[in-house]
Order: sequence, then structure tokens, then C-alpha cells
Amino acid sequence: MRLDRRAFLGAAAGACSAGLLHAARRRQNFVLIYADDLGYGDLGCYGHPTIRTPNLDRMAAEGVKFMQWYSAAPLCTPSRAALLTGRYAVRSGLTRVLFPDSTGGLPQSETTLAELLKGAGYQTAAIGKWHLGHLPQYLPMRHGFDSYYGIPYSNDMRPLDGPGAPGAAKYPPLPLMRDEKVIETEPDQATLTPRYTEEAVRKIRAFRGRPFFLYYAHTYPHVPLYASPRFRGRSVRGIYGDVVEEMDWSVGEILRALSETGQERNTLVVFTSDNGPWLQRQIHAGSAGLLREGKATTWEGGVRVPFIAWQPRRVQPGRTSFQVGSMLDLLPTFAAMAGAPLPSAPLDGEDLTRELCTEAPQRERTLFYWNAEQLCAVRQGPWKLHRVSNTAEWKSETSKHDPPLLFHLEHDPSEKHDVAREHPDVVQRLSALMTDHEAKIERGPAQR
Amino acid sequence: MRLDRRAFLGAAAGACSAGLLHAARRRQNFVLIYADDLGYGDLGCYGHPTIRTPNLDRMAAEGVKFMQWYSAAPLCTPSRAALLTGRYAVRSGLTRVLFPDSTGGLPQSETTLAELLKGAGYQTAAIGKWHLGHLPQYLPMRHGFDSYYGIPYSNDMRPLDGPGAPGAAKYPPLPLMRDEKVIETEPDQATLTPRYTEEAVRKIRAFRGRPFFLYYAHTYPHVPLYASPRFRGRSVRGIYGDVVEEMDWSVGEILRALSETGQERNTLVVFTSDNGPWLQRQIHAGSAGLLREGKATTWEGGVRVPFIAWQPRRVQPGRTSFQVGSMLDLLPTFAAMAGAPLPSAPLDGEDLTRELCTEAPQRERTLFYWNAEQLCAVRQGPWKLHRVSNTAEWKSETSKHDPPLLFHLEHDPSEKHDVAREHPDVVQRLSALMTDHEAKIERGPAQR
Repeated sequence: MRLDRRAFLGAAAGACSAGLLHAARRRQNFVLIYADDLGYGDLGCYGHPTIRTPNLDRMAAEGVKFMQWYSAAPLCTPSRAALLTGRYAVRSGLTRVLFPDSTGGLPQSETTLAELLKGAGYQTAAIGKWHLGHLPQYLPMRHGFDSYYGIPYSNDMRPLDGPGAPGAAKYPPLPLMRDEKVIETEPDQATLTPRYTEEAVRKIRAFRGRPFFLYYAHTYPHVPLYASPRFRGRSVRGIYGDVVEEMDWSVGEILRALSETGQERNTLVVFTSDNGPWLQRQIHAGSAGLLREGKATTWEGGVRVPFIAWQPRRVQPGRTSFQVGSMLDLLPTFAAMAGAPLPSAPLDGEDLTRELCTEAPQRERTLFYWNAEQLCAVRQGPWKLHRVSNTAEWKSETSKHDPPLLFHLEHDPSEKHDVAREHPDVVQRLSALMTDHEAKIERGPAQR
Repeated sequence: MRLDRRAFLGAAAGACSAGLLHAARRRQNFVLIYADDLGYGDLGCYGHPTIRTPNLDRMAAEGVKFMQWYSAAPLCTPSRAALLTGRYAVRSGLTRVLFPDSTGGLPQSETTLAELLKGAGYQTAAIGKWHLGHLPQYLPMRHGFDSYYGIPYSNDMRPLDGPGAPGAAKYPPLPLMRDEKVIETEPDQATLTPRYTEEAVRKIRAFRGRPFFLYYAHTYPHVPLYASPRFRGRSVRGIYGDVVEEMDWSVGEILRALSETGQERNTLVVFTSDNGPWLQRQIHAGSAGLLREGKATTWEGGVRVPFIAWQPRRVQPGRTSFQVGSMLDLLPTFAAMAGAPLPSAPLDGEDLTRELCTEAPQRERTLFYWNAEQLCAVRQGPWKLHRVSNTAEWKSETSKHDPPLLFHLEHDPSEKHDVAREHPDVVQRLSALMTDHEAKIERGPAQR
């Protein structure tokens, strides 16, 4: 953890009278629910034809649903690194997926959202998938979380096959951890969502009275897919739908716990996903809706995800926002809402508190699409310039686009119509942005 | 018009005490709003990322939204023929799109929904696109409508180019008709939606006190696209979005007129589309969302369309229904709701009143996918067997699938995973259904 000393002291000095005290009085809490491989089109309120998500639909109806919200990477590990640090994953070196035989993880030099909030007096907890290093020095409690309960990487990283995903013989049994101890191996995966949810509800009850940050990263709908008996066979979409509907139930339990403990008006609940659907998994994969491609690509289907925010009386209800937002924005936004100082390291996001809470004029954003160590595309305003792309096919080769492709994402969300020829000025401007970003960004040592 | 005499007399006999009087007392009205080429994914409540449709979203929130509702054909003319007769278009011979030099139209031997309701004491009006024959003997007033106001075919069937669609030099100027007279040629197309809407609102006010059926078939979002100055440039989606947002405004005006005239509780309002998006029109085309292909094909994107029904106190609010339904069902459903006798000709739809109004157990349906004179596919329950297909490419060749393709549409709405090999019994059962249907259906003389 590395906080800007001056900023921190400044905040601390004013804290008793204004900043922290005010935050404590308002007790602005945060619950961040992070799905795994859930696609842009997988929820009822985002148009899925056969999956029922009444609780998430209610969250959207009572809060705001963003239609142009991005993960900062199309894969689990880098997307989580970017989420928790507010920085592109290339900065922390976590550009690739970690496996059970990996030795790398999130460096101590990074300041996480949890550390930042803890520094401002928050109670913190992480539940579910971590995937930022499973060796002791990288676990959640070394990065600002007071507690941890979950599986430290993906649920297919295990010796045996499960429905929809192959394991690998060389991997150890899947560990379920509490804090820093493995408390169970090869847990019955059908019990995970209920157990995580129970833990989340328990935390929400226990946290009452002091501000908190709960980070609940679901294991699902990453393959292999397991639903508890209550949900198994319930969705007309099949097992994938069962799993998403159980996740929706889990969201409902969390909202209920907040309401029952009288914390719903001072808790921002955010629901989103780490990246698009893992299309290679075929019928066990979700849907990016009308977006092109899925996970592991820098087409929209790889990185644009559902994003719903809810806080009665603070988030104006029933809105659909076209504001371009990014997971990179959550750290500065939560910091602003909590009155916490920002870390000193360069950040890649912006404070979107205003856009989250009310209908504000659309703010023009510039977002970069990284895939592993490669800068592939940029979005500025409605324009996306794609220089390097790949497809969701297994081990697909990347294609270099020279001249690059240009899409107007607001007119053409499915990226069907390259309009580079008609807009040479835009191509030039966005190309320069990419060149500049690539040249200036500080790359951290690769974590593998 | 041909009503079953016995059924009619039977209904008429009981009418004074029950059927018609009861219908008159309840005054069950119908407003059927039919968009042109609007895709499954083009409304906010169906997940479009950058088109705003607050009035249709409200209709869905206060009513029911069907996720598996089908047009009976993937093209304008046959889809409208099937809608108004409750019969596959091959029966009336209207299997192909009519052009300004066509001499055919809807035969007098067919009984339309308008005739059926008129026979039960309804006032009727048609507004907008007709496309079932523009020679005098085929116009709306020869088919049960008391009045007509609109353009009798598509808005691109004119001499000059418009944004997004080419005309053809040989065609006469586009006619705007009132009843059976051309009152204007080449009307300013940016005025059409406001003028149609004004007419619809006027009719709703004038109809007050006696049951009515208003059929409002929009000219848009068929290309060429024109929005009135108030909407032009308003949508972040571009001109296509402007046009859809103006249509959404029009829906709001209709709901308002019903409410202001105290008719909202006894008027069923249905909003749907004739077929999927005309993808060849590129950026001027809509989106089928996660569905495959578009207009002119028997892939889901060609025929599955948004379908929203609204009637406060009668249609249970806030539902998303997975019930498979078809435009073929509207005639028997409206007949049942109006207490009107059915025509004697064979019908292809079913009375879905119960499924429309409340949450009922899913009823298994068998629907056939015709494209012009060819039977291409069948859906039974969640299964779709595809024997002949084409793509939305201009003048695409049809492909014969031998063995046929089998999709589980509820698990795999995007038709990506052919599972014919895994389910030979289903293939056999559905093949037999197609063979039987094809052999038995009575084909009407071709109308060209």
C-alpha cells in the first residue's frame, strides 16, 4: 500500500471535523458484486430471452443500469487487478490469467480499493474468487481485506472434469479458504453460491454501525457450472440459466439483509461482471447479446458488461445511462463517496459519482483496450479504433489491422461497419492516443 | 368475409344476454401497433444499448413482455396477411412482397380480424402501412375497416432515393391515402409519424362509447428513415434511433389518449413488429439482439420480434413471459376477448387470452416457419428443426440442410449449436410434423 502522504495527512487533518467524520456519519457503505464470465446479454433487464433475474431487474428499476460500461481487460486476472487498483493491469504486471502453478500475484506496491477504504476507517471483507495470486503474500488479507472466504482462483483449475470445462491432471484439489487457511478441498461446488451468500449476509449484519466495503466475487457463471438443488433444473435456459438465477437470488438476499439491518439508504450496491462470456464453452457459455465476440477478445463482447448500481435516495431510480464507464472508475468513485484520499500512483479512472447518482450530461471518455501485454484498441466518445484483434476461438491468432478499423459504437454497437475511410481525422486522432498511451504507460514486472 | 354461419348465429342468439352485450358492457377495445422491420433487440426493454424507449418500457413494466413471440413470416406482405387472417400466408396466396406494379392482394374469401370484430359491433380503423394490395378491391375498407389513412405499401417503393434505401425509377410517386382516395403524393416522410399519431388519437377520442379496433401499422423503421424535426438528431443511435424514439413517443400519445378518454382499463394495447431487421441496410437497419440473422430469413432474427401487451387491471403487470406465441394467435385471442365468433376457414393460431393476461403454465406450441412458398422450419416446444435456410445477404441462395439442423431455442437462442445428432427422436418427430403440415395445408392462388 502506498498512499499519497500529503493527500492522506490533508484528509486526516480535516477528518475529525469533516471528511472521515462526515463519511462515518453518513456511513457510506459499498457492496461490490462481481460475476465471473457473465455476458452483456445474460440478464433479464439486458434482454436475455430465457433467463429470469427479478432481483437484478428490481435493482435496475430502483437504481441505474449502464449500457456502456467496461471491464478493463477481457480476462479474469487482469480485469480484477484493474478493478481493485483503478489501473490498467499492465501497470501491476497482472496481464495474464494466473494458474494453480503460478508464483506471481498482486504486488505489495499496489494500493487496492480495500486498502484505501480501510485507511478511511472501513471494515472490509472479500468473498469468493480472488485470482490475484494464491501464495500467502498475495492473498486478500495482504491487500486490505479484514477477512476472506472463497476459492482463490477459477473453479475449473482442478484435477477433474466438471460440466462444461476440462480440468488439468497436474492441478491440486480445488481449495476453499477462510482467511489464509485452506479449510476444505474439492468443496461440493453446488454449495458455493449459498455458502458465499450466507457469509455475505452474516458480514452485512456484523458490519452494522461502522462503514464497510464488501467485495463479493462470485465463482459463477464461470464453468464448470453447478447450481444448488433448489435452482438446478429451474431455468428454461438450462444449467447456465440455473446458475445465473441462483446468483440473482443471492443478490436478492443481500438487498434484503441491507434492508433488514436498516443500511439500504447508505449502501451503494454495484453488480457487474469481470469480462464477457466464454464462448468456447458453447452451451455452457453466456451471451454478449448484440455485441461482437466474447471473453479473451477486445471486441465489445469481451469487455462490455452489465453494470447496475443501487442505493435508494442516493442513486436516482429507474435510469438507463449511456455514460461510458469503466471498472477503473470504481476506485476513484468509491474514494470520493467515502471521502478517502487517493493513492499516489497514477490512476486510469475518473470519479463518476455524479454520473452514477443522477442524470448528468454525457462525459466524453477515453478508454484503452488491453489484451495481455498488447494495446489493441481505444475508445474515445463514440469512436473505437481497433488496431489488433482476435476472436474467441480457442487459441485464435491475433490479426493486425492496417489500416486500423474504426467503429461508431453508439450507432453500430455490433461493430459491423468499419467507417475508417469516411473519418480519416478520427483515425488519426485515435491512433495518436494509442501511440502516446503505449509509449507513456509504466509496465510492472510480469506476474506469472 | 366468410363467417361460420352456425357459429355466428349461435353467438348472435346468446349475444343480447351474454356474448356481445357483455362485450359491449365491458367494451373490450383493441389497439394493435405494428412496427415495420423493428428488430428483437431494438427497444430499451429488450436490451438495446443506445435507443431510449421510455413509453414502451413503461408499457412492458405495466403489462407483459413476451420473449418468444413470432411473426408468421419474415417479410412485410405475408406477415401482415397472416396477422390479419390468423392463417399462414400460403393459404391466402400472399407469400411474397407486393410492389407498386403488383396486381394482386388479399382475396375477398379471407376473413380479417377487422371483419370479425366489425361483425361483433366494433368500430374499426386502419392507419399507416397496408401492403395487402393497393388496387381498390384490396384496400382496408374492403376488408372490414371503416376508415383508412396511410401509405398502402412500403415507403421505399418510390422513384427517388431516400436515406438508406434505393427506390426504383419505374415506380409512381408514393401515395398517401384517406379511405380509398389518394390525397397527397410524395408526402414529406418526416411528417408521417406525427400525422399518423394525430389520426390515431383523433380516432380514439371519436370511438369513445362503443367498442373499437384500431390497427396502427407504422411506416417505420423501414427504410428510408425520416424523423420529424423534434426527433431528428435526438438519439445517440443516429437516425435509426431517432425514428424508433419517435415511434416510442407515438405509443406514449396513444396511451395518454386512452387514459384521458377513460378507456385505458378496457383497451388492450399490443405493440409488435412485422419481421426482423433489414440487415442489408447496414447502419440504417435495426438489431435482432442475440438472435441470428434478420428479415427475409427463417433464422430467429427474421421472425422473432418484440411483443408487449398492456391493459391495466386485465393484463397482470410487470411480467416477462417465455410463452411461445405467434401473430397467428391474435385473431383467435381478440375474438375470444370480444366474444366474437371465429371464421369457418381453418385457422393456424390459438386463443392465448389466458397467457396474455396472467402467469399461466407454459403451453407447448407448434409453429411453422414459411419463407415465400417454402416451408423451412418448425418449432415445437423448445426445439427448432431447420430444413432449408438462407441468410440476410442480398439475394442469398437457400441452403438445404440434409440432415436437418436441430436447435434447442431456450438453451441456445442464438442458434449456434446444432444438436441433431444427440436427439434423433426429436429430429424424426419434427420432420414428420413438417411433412404432414406441408402435405395438408391448402395453398391459395399466388398473389403477385
